[in-house]
Amino acid sequence: MDYVYGPGRNHLFVPGPVNIPEPVLRAMNRNNEDYRSPAVPVLTKILLEDVKKIFKTTSGTPFLIPTTGTGAWESALTNTLSPGDRIVSFLIGQFSLLWIDQQQRLKFDVDVIESEWGQGANLDVLASKLASDIGHTIKAICIVHNETATGVTNNLATVRKLLDKLSHPALLLVDGVSSICALDFRMDEWGVDVALTGSQKALSLPTGMGIICASPKALEASKTAKSVRVFFDWNDYLKFYKLGTYWPYTPSIQLLYGLRAALDLIFEEGLDNVIARHGRLGKATRLAVEAWGLTNCTQKEEWYSDTVTAVVVPPSIDSAEIVRRAWKRYNLSLGLGLNKVAGKVFRIGHLGNLNELQLLGCLSGVEMILKDVGYPVKLGSGVAAAAAYLQNTIPLIPSRI
Amino acid sequence: MDYVYGPGRNHLFVPGPVNIPEPVLRAMNRNNEDYRSPAVPVLTKILLEDVKKIFKTTSGTPFLIPTTGTGAWESALTNTLSPGDRIVSFLIGQFSLLWIDQQQRLKFDVDVIESEWGQGANLDVLASKLASDIGHTIKAICIVHNETATGVTNNLATVRKLLDKLSHPALLLVDGVSSICALDFRMDEWGVDVALTGSQKALSLPTGMGIICASPKALEASKTAKSVRVFFDWNDYLKFYKLGTYWPYTPSIQLLYGLRAALDLIFEEGLDNVIARHGRLGKATRLAVEAWGLTNCTQKEEWYSDTVTAVVVPPSIDSAEIVRRAWKRYNLSLGLGLNKVAGKVFRIGHLGNLNELQLLGCLSGVEMILKDVGYPVKLGSGVAAAAAYLQNTIPLIPSRI
Amino acid sequence: MDYVYGPGRNHLFVPGPVNIPEPVLRAMNRNNEDYRSPAVPVLTKILLEDVKKIFKTTSGTPFLIPTTGTGAWESALTNTLSPGDRIVSFLIGQFSLLWIDQQQRLKFDVDVIESEWGQGANLDVLASKLASDIGHTIKAICIVHNETATGVTNNLATVRKLLDKLSHPALLLVDGVSSICALDFRMDEWGVDVALTGSQKALSLPTGMGIICASPKALEASKTAKSVRVFFDWNDYLKFYKLGTYWPYTPSIQLLYGLRAALDLIFEEGLDNVIARHGRLGKATRLAVEAWGLTNCTQKEEWYSDTVTAVVVPPSIDSAEIVRRAWKRYNLSLGLGLNKVAGKVFRIGHLGNLNELQLLGCLSGVEMILKDVGYPVKLGSGVAAAAAYLQNTIPLIPSRI
Amino acid sequence: MDYVYGPGRNHLFVPGPVNIPEPVLRAMNRNNEDYRSPAVPVLTKILLEDVKKIFKTTSGTPFLIPTTGTGAWESALTNTLSPGDRIVSFLIGQFSLLWIDQQQRLKFDVDVIESEWGQGANLDVLASKLASDIGHTIKAICIVHNETATGVTNNLATVRKLLDKLSHPALLLVDGVSSICALDFRMDEWGVDVALTGSQKALSLPTGMGIICASPKALEASKTAKSVRVFFDWNDYLKFYKLGTYWPYTPSIQLLYGLRAALDLIFEEGLDNVIARHGRLGKATRLAVEAWGLTNCTQKEEWYSDTVTAVVVPPSIDSAEIVRRAWKRYNLSLGLGLNKVAGKVFRIGHLGNLNELQLLGCLSGVEMILKDVGYPVKLGSGVAAAAAYLQNTIPLIPSRI
Repeated sequence: MDYVYGPGRNHLFVPGPVNIPEPVLRAMNRNNEDYRSPAVPVLTKILLEDVKKIFKTTSGTPFLIPTTGTGAWESALTNTLSPGDRIVSFLIGQFSLLWIDQQQRLKFDVDVIESEWGQGANLDVLASKLASDIGHTIKAICIVHNETATGVTNNLATVRKLLDKLSHPALLLVDGVSSICALDFRMDEWGVDVALTGSQKALSLPTGMGIICASPKALEASKTAKSVRVFFDWNDYLKFYKLGTYWPYTPSIQLLYGLRAALDLIFEEGLDNVIARHGRLGKATRLAVEAWGLTNCTQKEEWYSDTVTAVVVPPSIDSAEIVRRAWKRYNLSLGLGLNKVAGKVFRIGHLGNLNELQLLGCLSGVEMILKDVGYPVKLGSGVAAAAAYLQNTIPLIPSRI
Repeated sequence: MDYVYGPGRNHLFVPGPVNIPEPVLRAMNRNNEDYRSPAVPVLTKILLEDVKKIFKTTSGTPFLIPTTGTGAWESALTNTLSPGDRIVSFLIGQFSLLWIDQQQRLKFDVDVIESEWGQGANLDVLASKLASDIGHTIKAICIVHNETATGVTNNLATVRKLLDKLSHPALLLVDGVSSICALDFRMDEWGVDVALTGSQKALSLPTGMGIICASPKALEASKTAKSVRVFFDWNDYLKFYKLGTYWPYTPSIQLLYGLRAALDLIFEEGLDNVIARHGRLGKATRLAVEAWGLTNCTQKEEWYSDTVTAVVVPPSIDSAEIVRRAWKRYNLSLGLGLNKVAGKVFRIGHLGNLNELQLLGCLSGVEMILKDVGYPVKLGSGVAAAAAYLQNTIPLIPSRI
Repeated sequence: MDYVYGPGRNHLFVPGPVNIPEPVLRAMNRNNEDYRSPAVPVLTKILLEDVKKIFKTTSGTPFLIPTTGTGAWESALTNTLSPGDRIVSFLIGQFSLLWIDQQQRLKFDVDVIESEWGQGANLDVLASKLASDIGHTIKAICIVHNETATGVTNNLATVRKLLDKLSHPALLLVDGVSSICALDFRMDEWGVDVALTGSQKALSLPTGMGIICASPKALEASKTAKSVRVFFDWNDYLKFYKLGTYWPYTPSIQLLYGLRAALDLIFEEGLDNVIARHGRLGKATRLAVEAWGLTNCTQKEEWYSDTVTAVVVPPSIDSAEIVRRAWKRYNLSLGLGLNKVAGKVFRIGHLGNLNELQLLGCLSGVEMILKDVGYPVKLGSGVAAAAAYLQNTIPLIPSRI
Repeated sequence: MDYVYGPGRNHLFVPGPVNIPEPVLRAMNRNNEDYRSPAVPVLTKILLEDVKKIFKTTSGTPFLIPTTGTGAWESALTNTLSPGDRIVSFLIGQFSLLWIDQQQRLKFDVDVIESEWGQGANLDVLASKLASDIGHTIKAICIVHNETATGVTNNLATVRKLLDKLSHPALLLVDGVSSICALDFRMDEWGVDVALTGSQKALSLPTGMGIICASPKALEASKTAKSVRVFFDWNDYLKFYKLGTYWPYTPSIQLLYGLRAALDLIFEEGLDNVIARHGRLGKATRLAVEAWGLTNCTQKEEWYSDTVTAVVVPPSIDSAEIVRRAWKRYNLSLGLGLNKVAGKVFRIGHLGNLNELQLLGCLSGVEMILKDVGYPVKLGSGVAAAAAYLQNTIPLIPSRI
């Protein structure tokens, strides 16, 4: 029996894992198959071609690894770098912190540029570090495109410009876990060398597939990278790509068919429409927060995230209590504040396969909870602000008009 | 491919078919089975016992017929009555009208008591008809417990009192399609002779099972009822009940397991809690309608329905346009106004497996649509009114507290 | 929890309900929808066009009624005939018997032509009855295309010839429950006026949809047929067909999408390939029976059924014990002998979505059971006979070659 | 649309991924959930307790890592060993070869004991290596319990005895990928330090979960092991175990519920019954091979595997052609011969949720294919030999008797 199943649906507004669309659930409702049969390579080949589209790359090489975002990180690092390599990494929230922790434990020499949580990556410091790096000791820039803990989106185009201006050869490794397929992301245009995401984020699949894309330069780097790796080694994949059998070890048949269905939905809606939809839902959420008189953890508009909003609560309120009550009382799943912002923020994830009324239902729940915990919110105020905006945006279902 | 699949979920607020809970979908995700194997009778036996609980009967005999509500009506009538029998029937909306049409086509002598749409059954007229029926020519009273077209709930206890006061032997046949498992319904206490519902209503299953319960008096009547019937004949069922194989013809294996899961959920929540939940969601909906400055099609509070609310729109607005836009623009499914109230009302179904935030999402959608079509609603007003009430009700998920 | 779930799959070889293909299960794994939304009529319209193909008709009008085969029978009869009408009906097994019972209870004047069970319809008697029916008192011929209880397929082309030779206007009503989509069936060519099947048979869906197709002549008859009917009344359907909303009452959304998937699979394989496949599996089964030294209940080759084989056991053996052991010991579901042949035959259903190795697994199970109950079968003999034949037939999966 | 979907089921007889039982498919048919909600830790806690039972350990600590068997290997090695550590490893087939390749690439000093493919681990050589290792330079013995490529089961009890006799402190690391939950495996009794399997093997789940169990001694070793690791680091898991939130990164919700259902099925059948069932199906397969006049790749009975049988074909036949035809012609998935035995053997996997008639269907398919490719097999001979044995074994479904 399911644990404490309440009436009605769970309202899933954590910034991942996110809601799985029904067509994807259907596609994954299947028995195992022999992945060495002729059918699976045919499926895989097309998937690998199609998955490049969500990275906006034509020159990249994708890998669909049975792992999570944490494993995808490790794959990006160990295939392109050698122990002791100097890398620049930005610490702006919990997930960039965890990635840095991984970088350090993998024995890289991490040059950390820290910002206050709620701020974006400090690109001025990067600029000066690059400028002074005449000897090109910096082998890679590691940056989280969208910091899920604080709802901060970094400006990758600017990072690329800084590198280009100096003709700096450092690799650009990007965590796109809570951005790819939801935010504007352009692998080729921005010269990203490794980009990665996880299946349970904007692709709206179950957890279990790390999706990584490597530029030709990153592939070249993998030939000499000395980091010890086997499970995550791209070269094993590339060997099987050449054989046309694709898999060095067993993939999840269900996730492959699920990915097929997820991509079909995204392409049917149009990737740019998907991104625009995230833009509208993000803006609507921020308007609600403003209407409630609360502040966004993200300190400047240029960093506002369209996939997650971290809401700062007044000091008198414990944000963890808001998250607890949301789940217990209204079957609403919100994101906790993590680490430095624990107790101070709660997070509304608005990524993945989602529409206006789902979001407004969530916002109405947040209003009730805020009042429950003693914050003097005017019920309906956030919903009204969000609805007023959403009503005047273009429809989400063009095919029905 | 699914037809015009939009991003996010469909918001299903027609008064049936309603949302199917995930555990029920899971239970039905199965291959066919031999219904003559030992497993199916064991399952059926327990289902027949358990299904009596949702009728609040211990003396009734249930039938699970592979049909819809229309078929369940036909089963109730043809098993208990003979052509030419006089029956009293109340015309108060589209579904009572359709049942009367069926009664007439099945060759009964239907004595129709009509009310204005939006009013309940006129029990005063019934009282006088019964009083003057010294010869007991009235063989049955047919009444819709909850008229789904107008959102009117009739008072069955009073009907029983009128019959008892006169010791009138007429059978009491009740359409509980949009009431049973959602509204207070007491088969034994109210002396209901045949009660019926459909799987796709408050039980929150797919369409395809007519669920009928017959009192001992109804069963007795079935022995002499001369209406021609085979598919709907209870006697065929009773014959197989005695044999212990239960099914005169093939049942849907999937719906049997689905019913098992649906009943498990209802019993886990508690049937009275389920009914109370419908009470709260119904009240919240009416408070929103009031806040919008619109009127309930139901003219008096005593008839307010906790499973569906028919909302009257101003004459300048076509309610069908509201329903059309809801689906096209917001992926929200509302109920049309039917027949006499076509264009004049739209309906919000709030029955089945549903919770607060789902309803508030729907209400926020209605607000946007009202504004879209030119009605000067204050966005957030209905949501706020509903939320203020819901916030102060007891939690829907006691197991989590 | 599932009742006595054993390891591995259930081997479902009753002649319905049959195995549901995975793509169909997937298609049905979905929430309810508003059947009054624009999406459902679009789906229905195409389904109605496509379903005509499995009847091989262009002039027929199909009805997808939420009922079973028993209801489909009732629909065929009550829409085309009036009480007291004389009909000729063939009694050749349990299902024709049940249909005749229904015909009699629906107050038709049934002229029964009986054959020994195991023989086909006696068309000589029909010929003489028709010849002597100068006044055309016979309003309809009712015939089961494939008698599921004995595995007998009747010759419909001959029935048509007999009618045509005499220009007899009687309607030809055909139960195609265990034939349509599996055996050669030609509605237009054979001048069938009403043909019907159930979703759980060769279409390989769950139970719950009666699929009926009416010729223009049958539709014409429905205008004057005086049988009382409402739920099964085609005219209600036709009214909604004209409106373009299609449904007089609620359909099962899941079965509609399931039917779509089932038809897609059938058209992808090719209807004639599907029929040829049933031919091969039927023949293989009969070869196994012969190898076991057992006899086919069907007495002549011209009546052999390619969807079900009834196997006669020696008098010393109770065939019901074979069926019981099959389920208990090997998780194999076989069909019981019914009524006159109870205890004397057991049935192997080989219809629906099935392939060679599934059948051979079944046959190997039957061999073990035969030995278990004391019949001196040579293990492997039936499997070998079937395999020797199957090996030399054309492949079932042309797309893979 | 599914790629080349043939009629009927796929017969999945590769030694993994294996058939998923319907109750497990049902359990996994669900939306994502917040893994930080209170529900998921409750579920996880019980899973971790229950999963120990399939290892037959009470003192072990399990880890459920979102990875495959290859990742589970890496987890076992990197958490217990340091680069340069001497380990003894047995090369007896393709999967032990791949593990050794991993061990070498992870920079361990691998002392390989090679056997002819088709033979088990040479424990005499191990004995002498251990005896001469006075200084305890051997840090670990790595052994594949069941070599999936050749169908060889190694004797772990003897390995333990050799270590104990010499009081040698080497860790015992066991790949139980195609053994645990199917073959007799006793972690505590045999003093196994790390045991591992993958979800898609005998547990009959989709691919995606590496299931690892570490002894207290292995956990102790993990504190000082210097291999670089982050994603696979047990210490991150242990940290979250202590917190009671269990997951250092996102698990697959679907696999957790699937594992729950899989364990429920195993415990309901009884783990020892599951193992006995594999014993019977394995023996039946070998009897069939013998009846066909073919030889088992496994050279001695003591090594016979009850989860996979590698069948040697005559030199004139290409075993890959057998596998190709099986899939194309009969929708039967068999295992290829790998590496040294490519073209020489094909493999029948008989592990996971499987019963007699499924296996006999497979064997009848193999017979037809053997004949197709020119091998003079007597059709039915293998099926008969297997059936004769199976018929006299105890039933697989005790609950039905």
